[in-house]
Amino acid sequence: MGKYVFGVDLGGTTVKMGLFDTAGNVSDKWEIVTRKEDSGSHILPDIAESIKAKMAEKDIPASEVEGIGIGVPGPVDSKGVIHKAANLGWGVFSIKEEMEKLTGGIKVEAGNDANVAALGEMWKGGGEGHRNLVAVTLGTGVGGGIIVDGKILTGATGAGGEIGHIHIVDDEPESCGCGNHGCLEQYASATGISRLASRRLAEDDAASILRNGDVSAKAVFDAVKAGDEVAKEVAVRFGHYLGKGLAAVACTVNPEIFVIGGGVSKAGEVLFEYIVDEYKKYVFHGCRDAKFALAKLGNDAGIYGAAKLVITE
Amino acid sequence: MGKYVFGVDLGGTTVKMGLFDTAGNVSDKWEIVTRKEDSGSHILPDIAESIKAKMAEKDIPASEVEGIGIGVPGPVDSKGVIHKAANLGWGVFSIKEEMEKLTGGIKVEAGNDANVAALGEMWKGGGEGHRNLVAVTLGTGVGGGIIVDGKILTGATGAGGEIGHIHIVDDEPESCGCGNHGCLEQYASATGISRLASRRLAEDDAASILRNGDVSAKAVFDAVKAGDEVAKEVAVRFGHYLGKGLAAVACTVNPEIFVIGGGVSKAGEVLFEYIVDEYKKYVFHGCRDAKFALAKLGNDAGIYGAAKLVITE
Repeated sequence: MGKYVFGVDLGGTTVKMGLFDTAGNVSDKWEIVTRKEDSGSHILPDIAESIKAKMAEKDIPASEVEGIGIGVPGPVDSKGVIHKAANLGWGVFSIKEEMEKLTGGIKVEAGNDANVAALGEMWKGGGEGHRNLVAVTLGTGVGGGIIVDGKILTGATGAGGEIGHIHIVDDEPESCGCGNHGCLEQYASATGISRLASRRLAEDDAASILRNGDVSAKAVFDAVKAGDEVAKEVAVRFGHYLGKGLAAVACTVNPEIFVIGGGVSKAGEVLFEYIVDEYKKYVFHGCRDAKFALAKLGNDAGIYGAAKLVITE
Repeated sequence: MGKYVFGVDLGGTTVKMGLFDTAGNVSDKWEIVTRKEDSGSHILPDIAESIKAKMAEKDIPASEVEGIGIGVPGPVDSKGVIHKAANLGWGVFSIKEEMEKLTGGIKVEAGNDANVAALGEMWKGGGEGHRNLVAVTLGTGVGGGIIVDGKILTGATGAGGEIGHIHIVDDEPESCGCGNHGCLEQYASATGISRLASRRLAEDDAASILRNGDVSAKAVFDAVKAGDEVAKEVAVRFGHYLGKGLAAVACTVNPEIFVIGGGVSKAGEVLFEYIVDEYKKYVFHGCRDAKFALAKLGNDAGIYGAAKLVITE
């Protein structure tokens, strides 16, 4: 078994990379630009070159490299095949095989970036010590990554963990980015919280800090912490929808722990005051004791999870 | 690798057993009584004796037995430990270890009976050829079994696949057996369909075959087939709730196929006319092409799935 592992988090603008030992300690982190021109054909060669340069710099022979893991912004099946990543100009091909050729036979594994980040949080983040985990990313949208017995649940078409699109509300007039109406994402993402706040403010003229013009998710939770009653009502609605959605997820995959990340999670532990009781109210009793924790790795979750992809236990 | 496998489906009244080859052909099936007295302490020794007797009868040496799989009515973790089966008088212990002792070291694996039946349907039933499957049992309740990459999703506390308790309706006055209100099981089980029928009949005095007194799930779908408009309305409501529930399941685990079994499934393909469109309406587009099939193995799903538990690929 090699001593070193490379974790690669491939994004639309930059590629983040990390050099790890197999215990999960990172000794170096760096970035390169994602060159998307020519249908993204430079991306993997660029990554391979960057890794080879790092191996030369650190005097690491290929025999000491356990493998290279890559997280990609698109659906990747369990064999390492990407099924289109429009963002990168990529069609359907085996990232695993292509990258193994480019690096002279070093083992490569690939996964979807949200799922890979979930694996990172399991390994060295908010879910450390658990093997059955649901990572929930509350950002512009609501993403999810599901880990079962220590492995990513990819699903039939790479849509495993798309929990932001669980139907939650029947009479939603606005449509979700996915085309449906009433998806969890419409209430529990940063955008969704902001919408809930605007709607609440329109209901009456109760005094609130939120009337100052900023109804962002951050403003809502800052106002909650400042004791603003209207903001608390918004948080109650957010917690109701998210708790109900996570209860449906738990009745399906029964995780040990939910790890909450993304921009909204910067509000901190106060989120759990609004989510957990609603979760317990709606979930099957056998799932009631699931834990809730905040994600810890931030933007590094991707490189950690990618490294973990190639480490077999 | 041995040539033979025993599949055991342990129920509260009888234990069903089957002798399989490793390709999944069953050459013998038989039953013994489940002796529940003395805290269920006779059950595993009875099963072991019955298997030894069958081996003697068929002249099968232990070296030719690949293993024994057991499905049990209670939560079994991924290590083969049962966490209480009140129905059998059992507490917490390792079925795997106990049974391996009783059979002189033959490999044993154990799982929850609903999950094991799902595995059977994947192996030789309605889900044959698929490795990512959700089995849905529409019986007295609504049960589920989830198979990911060919393996049972057990969950943290053995509650993986408890999809009957996904919250579906907000204003349900009656309580579910689990204590919550508005669970999927309250609308999609045989009992639930019957309740939907009674409620529909009470709404007005529209003519219907169902006014003859029988509002069982079977009567409802028989009436649907006979063109009864009121029964069709009941089926529409059933399909709406079930389709919505399965959409939430799909946004989480993204199966290739749903396999529908249990008493209600005897209505046949007509069920899909009511379920599938509603499913497609509520699910994330990446999961829209999941297939729907009827379970095929009936009461034998348990012994097939139990046998499959010990066959590694």
